[in-house]
Amino acid sequence: MSAPVYIALVHYPIVNKHGALVTTSITNFDLHDLARTSTTYGIENYFVVTPNEPQKAMAAYIKDYWREGFGATFNPDRKDAFANMEIASNLAETCLTIQNRHDKRPRLIATTAKRVEKPISFGELRQSISQTSDPVLLVFGTGWGLASSVLEEADAILEPIYGPSAYNHLPVRSAVAIILDRLLAPSRTN
Amino acid sequence: MSAPVYIALVHYPIVNKHGALVTTSITNFDLHDLARTSTTYGIENYFVVTPNEPQKAMAAYIKDYWREGFGATFNPDRKDAFANMEIASNLAETCLTIQNRHDKRPRLIATTAKRVEKPISFGELRQSISQTSDPVLLVFGTGWGLASSVLEEADAILEPIYGPSAYNHLPVRSAVAIILDRLLAPSRTN
Repeated sequence: MSAPVYIALVHYPIVNKHGALVTTSITNFDLHDLARTSTTYGIENYFVVTPNEPQKAMAAYIKDYWREGFGATFNPDRKDAFANMEIASNLAETCLTIQNRHDKRPRLIATTAKRVEKPISFGELRQSISQTSDPVLLVFGTGWGLASSVLEEADAILEPIYGPSAYNHLPVRSAVAIILDRLLAPSRTN
Repeated sequence: MSAPVYIALVHYPIVNKHGALVTTSITNFDLHDLARTSTTYGIENYFVVTPNEPQKAMAAYIKDYWREGFGATFNPDRKDAFANMEIASNLAETCLTIQNRHDKRPRLIATTAKRVEKPISFGELRQSISQTSDPVLLVFGTGWGLASSVLEEADAILEPIYGPSAYNHLPVRSAVAIILDRLLAPSRTN
């Protein structure tokens, strides 16, 4: 038994460096890198979440280019990677899509770079993913992180990643890679 | 005791999708992401390796912008990240810089996405880093990977990263993050 795992990259509601609520822009590198990392780790779908219609259209254009356009023949590996990318207006819509597929609301796990009270540890979440069949949605922020409303509505918040240094400003592209590896790599050699 | 660890992102000699030797272009996102990930994991220096003088000048310009220019006050976290980025013309120069600092040639560990004979495992390398004080240089390729000459001159080749799927086309930004986490994260919770 193993839980189907989804990820969402959220562009609203996000806080900026001053703590204000903002909608961040989609970053082309995020689309490629998260699609490739998700495909490597067997993620069911990678949802790009933004309420901004022109941004949604841009993400759809990029996906189509690599799925159906010149990109599909130029680089078939990239065609495969973009197969799991979906576009959604908000987290509620994302949860509903997943719920409709599994007849069960996903367990919403938020991520953060900040220390929080009673986070779920990587070990606990890895174990629960391997031992249950209920869908899991890992939620990643952009900008200066997920708005507090998202952290509050989550079923759990994953413990932050710390390296050996005090610096904790990983790019979201790196954070997603490390988190999926810690949770889903087939066997640990250390 | 713990070994000083360096990383190099190589833009020549690299193979392209047809197996030909090429010099790849520097990617701005690589500079930022690898600087931030390196700083998180306590890497001594992150070397951007290219023989192309205009590309070296561009990398230096970007570093200066975040170290001394407007970027340094706009985002001090980024200023900190770029402190460990260095620019080098080739791997020999990189090794010499490290050797001059430690009075010992670094152990050159190449990385690859392909299966190779007798790779060093993550567990072995993690243990040797934690138990020795000799410098280690982890070498990452761009494009379709490091040229065979680099793999042949390396002291060892690190085992490739595999997720639960057969897809093994991670972005180098994600591969660096996962490898540094597996080798250097302070404690494993799973």
